[in-house]
Amino acid sequence: MAKKGITRRGLLGGAAATAAFAALPRSTQAAGRSADVIVIGAGLAGLTAAREIAQAGRSVIVLEARNRVGGRVLNHALGSGGYTELGGMFTGPTQDHIQALATEVGIGTFPTYNTGNNVFVGGGGRREEFPNNTPFGTAPPDPVVAPDIALAVTLLDQMSQSVPVDTPWTSASAEQWDRQTLDTWLRSNTSGSDEFMAVTSAATEAIFGSEPRELSLLYTLFYIAASGNEQNPGTFERNFNTAGGAQESRFVGGAQMVPLQVAAQLGARVLLNQPVHRIDQSSTGPVTVYSGRHFRAFGQRVIVAIPPTLAGRIEYDPPLPPLRDQLMQHMPQGTLMKFEAIYDTPFWRAAGLTGQAVSETGPIKVTFDTSPADGSFGVLMGFIGGHEARVWENRQEGERQAAALQNLATYFGNQALSPREIVEFNWSTEVWNRGCPVAVLAPGTLIDFGAALREPVGRIHWAGTETSTYWNGYMDGAVRSGERAAAEVLALL
Amino acid sequence: MAKKGITRRGLLGGAAATAAFAALPRSTQAAGRSADVIVIGAGLAGLTAAREIAQAGRSVIVLEARNRVGGRVLNHALGSGGYTELGGMFTGPTQDHIQALATEVGIGTFPTYNTGNNVFVGGGGRREEFPNNTPFGTAPPDPVVAPDIALAVTLLDQMSQSVPVDTPWTSASAEQWDRQTLDTWLRSNTSGSDEFMAVTSAATEAIFGSEPRELSLLYTLFYIAASGNEQNPGTFERNFNTAGGAQESRFVGGAQMVPLQVAAQLGARVLLNQPVHRIDQSSTGPVTVYSGRHFRAFGQRVIVAIPPTLAGRIEYDPPLPPLRDQLMQHMPQGTLMKFEAIYDTPFWRAAGLTGQAVSETGPIKVTFDTSPADGSFGVLMGFIGGHEARVWENRQEGERQAAALQNLATYFGNQALSPREIVEFNWSTEVWNRGCPVAVLAPGTLIDFGAALREPVGRIHWAGTETSTYWNGYMDGAVRSGERAAAEVLALL
Repeated sequence: MAKKGITRRGLLGGAAATAAFAALPRSTQAAGRSADVIVIGAGLAGLTAAREIAQAGRSVIVLEARNRVGGRVLNHALGSGGYTELGGMFTGPTQDHIQALATEVGIGTFPTYNTGNNVFVGGGGRREEFPNNTPFGTAPPDPVVAPDIALAVTLLDQMSQSVPVDTPWTSASAEQWDRQTLDTWLRSNTSGSDEFMAVTSAATEAIFGSEPRELSLLYTLFYIAASGNEQNPGTFERNFNTAGGAQESRFVGGAQMVPLQVAAQLGARVLLNQPVHRIDQSSTGPVTVYSGRHFRAFGQRVIVAIPPTLAGRIEYDPPLPPLRDQLMQHMPQGTLMKFEAIYDTPFWRAAGLTGQAVSETGPIKVTFDTSPADGSFGVLMGFIGGHEARVWENRQEGERQAAALQNLATYFGNQALSPREIVEFNWSTEVWNRGCPVAVLAPGTLIDFGAALREPVGRIHWAGTETSTYWNGYMDGAVRSGERAAAEVLALL
Repeated sequence: MAKKGITRRGLLGGAAATAAFAALPRSTQAAGRSADVIVIGAGLAGLTAAREIAQAGRSVIVLEARNRVGGRVLNHALGSGGYTELGGMFTGPTQDHIQALATEVGIGTFPTYNTGNNVFVGGGGRREEFPNNTPFGTAPPDPVVAPDIALAVTLLDQMSQSVPVDTPWTSASAEQWDRQTLDTWLRSNTSGSDEFMAVTSAATEAIFGSEPRELSLLYTLFYIAASGNEQNPGTFERNFNTAGGAQESRFVGGAQMVPLQVAAQLGARVLLNQPVHRIDQSSTGPVTVYSGRHFRAFGQRVIVAIPPTLAGRIEYDPPLPPLRDQLMQHMPQGTLMKFEAIYDTPFWRAAGLTGQAVSETGPIKVTFDTSPADGSFGVLMGFIGGHEARVWENRQEGERQAAALQNLATYFGNQALSPREIVEFNWSTEVWNRGCPVAVLAPGTLIDFGAALREPVGRIHWAGTETSTYWNGYMDGAVRSGERAAAEVLALL
C-alpha cells in the first residue's frame, strides 16, 4: 500500500500530489490515524483539550513528541527513594480549573509547608528571619527594601486592574505601558535602590525565568491581572505568595499525577514519540499532521498545544499569516533551572524555618520546602532563573552545585551543605521546551501582535498556557486554554 | 542503492542507525553530495563564505531553500518593463566589503537621486520642503522637531562610541543601556513631544522594521557604532543619510546582481530548492545536512548563513546548547514592506524634489526615488514598517494601496495618485525570511545572550548580517560575516 501511495505521488506533482495524498482513504496509509481532532502536545493544555473532545463524543488523537506526558509538569524518581517535582508543582486560590480537573481524576492537594519564619538575605549578606504574614506575604519586611516593595506592589496591582485579561492591548494605557520595561518603571516609581532592584530580580527570575529589563510593563500588568479568575481580580500578592497565593498547595503524588491520570483516561488516543514537524491544511481534505518520517494523522481540526516558540518551528502549509509567525518569533521562553537538595530530614523545620527564602545573591535567590507531605525526608527547592541561569548553566556542575549549596547554607544553616542527593534540571536544555516557565513578552509585543494569540488559522487552533486569559503561565492557565480550544473546535465540528 | 541504505537503517536503531547512515561512503547515497564545507543559505553571507572557501582551494556546497539566490536582496521585473529592487539596494561610505565584492564581480554603482529638496510632513499635515544638506542630512530642519533630533542624534552618537562592536555587552554602561527601550531613553532625554516621537517611529520603521519601544537602547547604540568600519567609527547620520550615508549609491542592474554574479562563479556548487531541516554532527563522521525528503550533504564543517529566527527552526543533533537556542528565540525579524509606485517619468524631479520624504503619518513614512539610473521611468519607493506594517498587512490590498498613494500624493503631488504599476512586497510573508530587514533585539538580549552570536557549536559556524560587527543588518555586514565565517572554517580544515 505504501508503494501505491508512492506511485500516486509520482504521477502527480507538487501541491496536487500533496492534496491527492492527503485525500487518500486513511486505510491506504502505511502509518496513519484519523480522528475528528488532532491535538499536538500532551501537556496539561493538550490533554485537557483532548479530554473535553472525547467527553463530547468526538474522536481525538494526541501526538506527543516525548516518551512521556505532562509537558512542563514532571515528577522525578529520586535515587534515594521517593520523588521530587521538576516543573509546575504549586496551586492556590482561584486556580479553579486545574483543581477541578485534579479532583475529577482523583488527585488531591496538601498544603505547602509554611510554618515558621521565612529568611531574607540582603546586601552585605545581612540575614533576617521574619514571620511570613506581612501584608505582602512572602515579601521581606526588611526596612531597606520593604517600603519600595509595598509601593511597587500597590501601584502595580492598581494599574493591573485596568488591563483586560483577554485583550490587554486595549487597555487605555496600553501604549504607555508597552513601550517600557518593568525595570524602567520600577526605577521611575520607587527609590530604584540596588537592593530593591536585586529583590525584583529575585522575584522575576523565579516567576518568569527573566529579568525586569526583559519584561514589558504591560505584559507584567497583564500577568498580574491574570492571577485571579472571573470573580476575583488578579493581584501580584496572589501570584507570589504561599499562604493565600499560587504556592499555597501541592498535589498528592506530585503535579504530574494530573496529566498522567488524564492520559490514562484517554488511553490509546495518546501517541508518544510523535514529534510533529508539519501541518498541511492546503487541501479541502482533512488536515494532515506529519510526525517523524512516516506517520500521518488526519483530522477535521488541529489544536496546537505546545509553547509558542516551538509551534513556530513546525512547517505549515499554507504558511501561517505573518502576524502569527512573527508573534511566535516574539515569544521566547524564560530561562529556569530547578535545584533540589535532598536531605534525610527537613532539618530547617526544627529551627523554626519554613524553608522559604528570598535573597539578593544567587545563583539561588528563591527557595521552598518541597519535602513530601509526610516529611519523611527533606527537600529544599531553589530556582536559578533569568540572568543567573544563563550564567550558571554554562559553568561546571561542581562549581554550580557548590555555589547553590552555599546559598542554601546561608539561608538555612550548614546542614544544607550535606544533602544526600542533588537534582538539577534545566528546562532550557529540553528540546521540547527550550525554556520555562512561560513565554516572556518584551515591550511592543502585546500591542502589535497580541491579537494573533488565540486567533485560529484556518482549521488550526491554539492552546497552551501562554494563550490563557487567567493564570497565564501556570497549570491552571494550561487547563483553561485546553478547555477554550476544545470549545472552539467542538462548536465547528 | 537506496534500498541498501534503507536495509542498513532497518538493521540498526535510533542514533546508531543515523551514525551508520552518515558514515556510509558518499557514493552509496541515492541523493547525497559531499564537500569540505556545507553552507546553508545563498544570500550574500553564504555566497561570500562559499566564494572565499572555493578561492582557498577547498570544496564547498551551498544549499539554498529557494529557487533563487540573494536572500534579502531581490530584483523584480516590472510588468511595464525594467526592474525594481524589493530588498537591500543602497550602499555608501565605509561599506567597503560589499563594494569590494561588487567590484570583483564586475558590478558598479551609481548615485542615488538626491538633487533638490526633501519633503517633511509633520503634525496637522503641515508640509515643508528643505534642502537635504542640513547638519543632520535627511533629518528635517522643521523647528518643531529639529532641536530634539539634533539632541538625540548627538547624544546617541556620543554614547555609541563607548560600545565595542564585537562585544557590545562589555560596554561600561551596558547594563544601564540594555535595561531600557530606545523609546524610554528618547522620552527621558528630549522633549518627548508627540511630533518628535512620531519622527523617531518613521526612522526606526524604515531602519529596523520596528518601533522605538521594541529596541533595546544598547542594541540601538551598537547598531550606530556598527555604521562604520575599522577606521571610521559609526555614526547615526551615516546610517540614515543619503549624501555621505548608507543610501548614497545603488548598484548597476540592481543589488541582486552581486549575489547573482557570485553564484554564477560558484556554478554547480550552489544547489537551489534545498530547504535544510536537520544538521547532524553526532557522529565522528562528516557533519550531515538534511534537505527535503531525501537529500543529504556531508561536510567537515557547516556554515549556517540564514536569519537567526530561521536557524532556530532547524533540527540539530546533538541539540544546540541552551544559550544558543534561546539567543535565536530572542532574535525576531523586523516587519517591513516595500511599496513601489511606478510612473512614466520621475515627475517630482521637475518640481525640484529629491523624492525623499519623512512623514509623521503612514502607512508610508519614508520614501526614496529609486528610478533607474537613466531616469527612463520613475519609481517612488516607500517603506511600510513596524507598527504600520503589522496593521496594514492585514487590510485589503485596495485600501492599503489607496492609503499609500495618498501618502505619496501628499509628499509629491497628485500625479503620484496615478502610477502605471504598483509593486508591494511584504518580507514577513516570505517563508525563508519571515521578516526584514534585520533581527531586532529587545532589552536584555545582548547582555545575556550576545556571547553566543558568533560562537561556533562544534563544527557549525554562524554567518549572516546579524553576526556582523560592522554594518550589522546591511549587505556589507552580510559580506563581512561570510568572510569571517569562511576564515574560521578555513583555519580549522
